[in-house]
Amino acid sequence: MTDTNILHDVDALLRQLFPICRSITGNGVRQSLDILRATAPFDVVEVPSGTPSFDWTVPDEWNVRDAYVADSHGRRLIDFQQNNLHLVSYSEPYEGTLTFDELHPRLYTLPDLPDAIPYRTSYYNRTWGFCLSQNQFDALDRNELYTVKVDTTLAPGSLTYGETFLPGKSGREFLITTYCCHPSLANDNLSGMVLLTLLLRELQARDLWHSYRFLIIPETIGALTWLAQNEEAARRVSGAYVITTVAGPGAIGFKRSFAGDHLIDRITRLTFAEAGLSVTEYPFDANGSDERQFSSPGFRIACNTICKDKYYEYPYYHTSLDNLDFAKADALVETLKLYFQAIDNLEFNRTYRSFNPKGEPMLGKRGLYPQLGGAIRQSAAGAAYGNELDAIRWLMFYSDGQTPLLDIAEKTGFPLRQLHEVAQKLVAGGLLELVG
Amino acid sequence: MTDTNILHDVDALLRQLFPICRSITGNGVRQSLDILRATAPFDVVEVPSGTPSFDWTVPDEWNVRDAYVADSHGRRLIDFQQNNLHLVSYSEPYEGTLTFDELHPRLYTLPDLPDAIPYRTSYYNRTWGFCLSQNQFDALDRNELYTVKVDTTLAPGSLTYGETFLPGKSGREFLITTYCCHPSLANDNLSGMVLLTLLLRELQARDLWHSYRFLIIPETIGALTWLAQNEEAARRVSGAYVITTVAGPGAIGFKRSFAGDHLIDRITRLTFAEAGLSVTEYPFDANGSDERQFSSPGFRIACNTICKDKYYEYPYYHTSLDNLDFAKADALVETLKLYFQAIDNLEFNRTYRSFNPKGEPMLGKRGLYPQLGGAIRQSAAGAAYGNELDAIRWLMFYSDGQTPLLDIAEKTGFPLRQLHEVAQKLVAGGLLELVG
Amino acid sequence: MTDTNILHDVDALLRQLFPICRSITGNGVRQSLDILRATAPFDVVEVPSGTPSFDWTVPDEWNVRDAYVADSHGRRLIDFQQNNLHLVSYSEPYEGTLTFDELHPRLYTLPDLPDAIPYRTSYYNRTWGFCLSQNQFDALDRNELYTVKVDTTLAPGSLTYGETFLPGKSGREFLITTYCCHPSLANDNLSGMVLLTLLLRELQARDLWHSYRFLIIPETIGALTWLAQNEEAARRVSGAYVITTVAGPGAIGFKRSFAGDHLIDRITRLTFAEAGLSVTEYPFDANGSDERQFSSPGFRIACNTICKDKYYEYPYYHTSLDNLDFAKADALVETLKLYFQAIDNLEFNRTYRSFNPKGEPMLGKRGLYPQLGGAIRQSAAGAAYGNELDAIRWLMFYSDGQTPLLDIAEKTGFPLRQLHEVAQKLVAGGLLELVG
Repeated sequence: MTDTNILHDVDALLRQLFPICRSITGNGVRQSLDILRATAPFDVVEVPSGTPSFDWTVPDEWNVRDAYVADSHGRRLIDFQQNNLHLVSYSEPYEGTLTFDELHPRLYTLPDLPDAIPYRTSYYNRTWGFCLSQNQFDALDRNELYTVKVDTTLAPGSLTYGETFLPGKSGREFLITTYCCHPSLANDNLSGMVLLTLLLRELQARDLWHSYRFLIIPETIGALTWLAQNEEAARRVSGAYVITTVAGPGAIGFKRSFAGDHLIDRITRLTFAEAGLSVTEYPFDANGSDERQFSSPGFRIACNTICKDKYYEYPYYHTSLDNLDFAKADALVETLKLYFQAIDNLEFNRTYRSFNPKGEPMLGKRGLYPQLGGAIRQSAAGAAYGNELDAIRWLMFYSDGQTPLLDIAEKTGFPLRQLHEVAQKLVAGGLLELVG
Repeated sequence: MTDTNILHDVDALLRQLFPICRSITGNGVRQSLDILRATAPFDVVEVPSGTPSFDWTVPDEWNVRDAYVADSHGRRLIDFQQNNLHLVSYSEPYEGTLTFDELHPRLYTLPDLPDAIPYRTSYYNRTWGFCLSQNQFDALDRNELYTVKVDTTLAPGSLTYGETFLPGKSGREFLITTYCCHPSLANDNLSGMVLLTLLLRELQARDLWHSYRFLIIPETIGALTWLAQNEEAARRVSGAYVITTVAGPGAIGFKRSFAGDHLIDRITRLTFAEAGLSVTEYPFDANGSDERQFSSPGFRIACNTICKDKYYEYPYYHTSLDNLDFAKADALVETLKLYFQAIDNLEFNRTYRSFNPKGEPMLGKRGLYPQLGGAIRQSAAGAAYGNELDAIRWLMFYSDGQTPLLDIAEKTGFPLRQLHEVAQKLVAGGLLELVG
Repeated sequence: MTDTNILHDVDALLRQLFPICRSITGNGVRQSLDILRATAPFDVVEVPSGTPSFDWTVPDEWNVRDAYVADSHGRRLIDFQQNNLHLVSYSEPYEGTLTFDELHPRLYTLPDLPDAIPYRTSYYNRTWGFCLSQNQFDALDRNELYTVKVDTTLAPGSLTYGETFLPGKSGREFLITTYCCHPSLANDNLSGMVLLTLLLRELQARDLWHSYRFLIIPETIGALTWLAQNEEAARRVSGAYVITTVAGPGAIGFKRSFAGDHLIDRITRLTFAEAGLSVTEYPFDANGSDERQFSSPGFRIACNTICKDKYYEYPYYHTSLDNLDFAKADALVETLKLYFQAIDNLEFNRTYRSFNPKGEPMLGKRGLYPQLGGAIRQSAAGAAYGNELDAIRWLMFYSDGQTPLLDIAEKTGFPLRQLHEVAQKLVAGGLLELVG
């Protein structure tokens, strides 16, 4: 798969998925998951409305046929068909004629971003409302009578999510999640859905060391629902990536886990260092995405989010300006490569035990040592070979059966990939055994 | 109690107590404790001379009727009636006529502070002596015959100290001590006696979470005597404030405990941070005040001292210039407020367990969440409400039954007071339970 | 022993030992050890060729009678008699006539240091070769026929090393090693052999607290051989100094142990601090000297190397320019003093328990306190006495039977020597007991 091909796939998926009206339930989610399954297969799970999820309950399913505010001439002034952000998500059905003063409390704008339509939801409080740009709002006639139609359904149905499990050999499992509940917002979080799907496509084709569970779920209620139905599986998880806002033009960085120096933080930090990227580290925050559920006291799964233009941090966040002019395929691919590298580093992070713990092994008799001693530093054979000899020495020095390669990479500065490759040579040469 | 009232009380106490001649035993201590008991009641304990206190023994009681050095005309050149610092504390009785050369070895001056009378003691080595300013000394006639009178008593009596215990509910106990053995020295340590008494008056009126034991004791021998008589009580103590030198014009700061990061250090540090004060941290030192006894290997009680112009650090330390022109009521009240805040923070530092450890609770159904999602950051409702929601999330995130609010305050930057108040709401709302 | 005497002894040993051709086996090692034994006696151990040493085997013994490359006129152009570095160490016997092109692959030079002869070895790959300066090489006639003679023996014999054990009382043992396998190279590592011998001479004359084992061994194979024959003894070792490259004109510093903050690192760091020297700390490296064996997973002995012009770091390393113009007696003595001080600090690092853990002891009744209180800071008696009182207080404060003097020195800044001396006074005064 070349970079060009990946870029093409990302771009096609972004354009195909962007217009769909998604929410925490409903056909928009189903349609989106169907499109993504064409790229990388996963199961689609339906959980009926009313199912308890710890302190929560799966809500009624919400679907939209149409919604608008029209003037007395029948002209649609605020039109869901133009932009699904115009309708407050989970608006209940309504039909009526209202004066401006009656309509006014149902309208939401962003005075500071007068061209942008805000994104609002009201999942658990039955109401209806419309979002519009400040400019649109200012142009509304204060003396007009407005026809309002909210042609939605809010009825028992189900919550829909995608899941797949890729088994590995190590006995350790990592969780990779994203959320699929936002309507036409590109960076938050169409970008996350697309990135996760391409990551899944790549890993499905591999022989894996660890197991990975991929989830595409509605934020909060989806995470809670999955946890409630999979408590045992959740307890097996050694760490997680919560993928969101990965394709903006701005800073690349990551949000730390609550622990700050958990395995997953160290893997992410090393990945950035190896990529030569200066990283913006966002401290853990009890606000955020589904790490709020996965890291809660009952589960305490350490989560990282590698992101490019992190949610909360960019001015277009949760507005109609978070569109495909803002979030783009090339930025997404840049972030995707970091996730590839992070997963690689998780995969490389194995632990070995030396068969030769007492003193150094004699490398010469195994063909692992240059024939003439005393001149390694000056040798024109140079950095490459010298480095490999150093890597061998460090691996033999630290491999006591308790020191993972990640520790050795951090202590020595050797790339984790090189340590992994040299360790495999040393296993083949009978000097190391893989213990975990 | 308004600030003005407190300021008035502090000033009155300072002026009333300053002239009294205190030492490690004697009527000056009794008289001082009687005055303080009018502000906040405590018990007065008398321990007989000869009582063993670990490696020490309660000494004979010392009282002074009069003491002076007069010239051959009967003029008192060095006069205890003028300033009780003139007499070396615990001077034994003496009467005689001496040449200048005979008198000279009994005189103590401070050449670098020629106006100041030094403060000297000789508790455990029977002798007598006089302190005077270098200027006074220089004016002495080398050819004069001097009449010396030290009209003191050194006889079996008792050591006197004040003590009270304020019980709380948490099962944890803190010690708050000061020393009452210095004569007319204002910052060291009349200021400490007054501050402790006002702190006691405030806490006596409260419903307390922790228990607090207040001691006003002679330094060193008083601390040893209390420890020797209360070993069991001492072992229950979770931390201590040793109050001294709290009313100077100079830097406000604190002396760390031997541990440096004990609960009491963290409470003090947070208190300074919340007060927006840049703090001078003094490292632990085996020199100092009664932390030398309380923190000794057999007890290892972590002590802090919040001080304003710390002992040893100001040039007038242990001289007659440490008077009421130097140590003043407004400075004392400034330090007192920090002690109030530190005690508040100790009180707020409780530990809670979530009843909803798996995922977040649904705040909406409990009226704890704004009705429209998606716009918290932009909401004009703004910082205040948003902050409370954040505080709720952090509290629910960390309250695993093992993480005290102090830890949460340190991790999140929320004021401990706010965390305490929000935690109480969450207890009322059935989301948290108090566990310790 | 005055500094002048030591300097004389060092200089004499350097000059006597420098010309000898040493390798990992052979008569050069025996001759060198014989010379050193005249300064400080130790045992000489012979381990037969063929003896297994973990993954290695003691090789055949190598001795050289003569070696040269001559032109067709019989002129010796490259001559072992001129400089033993000319012959690749462990060259097998050879005799023959070669064209320049045939000879060329057997020749080693350093183009970047055209005057220097490189140092090369081929211990475990049977071959032969010559080292020469680039200038010598450039002067060789490309059309000449060369007579080569390598008159060496490679035959069963033994590996030779020196060892002595100085018993102490503490039950803890430290290892002090150097290597004796380099031919005419002064800093690396004739300097180490001489320094170790003078350290041994000094310690042999003392009543020691710890036990010390001194080894003068061939690098790598000698360390492995000693470990293989002394596994139990090796497990008793609490730390080690591997002495090498101690007499260069450049930076004085030390190489850390793998742990970085082991007892031996802390002792070394304190020693540098007390000497007022800014120290170059070299991180642990799996390259290096015999710490590679001693610190391997099966032994994990923490090693430090205090060095002056560390191996790898100076341009003349492993060349004929590492001679007695480069490494000198006065530099060696400077490093030797640091080793003396480090060993002193190891010796001083004892642990005491207070007989008076509850509160402070009454120093006055023991004659340990100045007679007049209240004026310690101003006393003209000054720093010295005041310091001793402080030292007493810190020792009594920390001596809980678990806190070694090293910890107290690090925490307080008192010299370890002073703490040791004051502790002995306190033992004599019945206030402390030595526990380890």
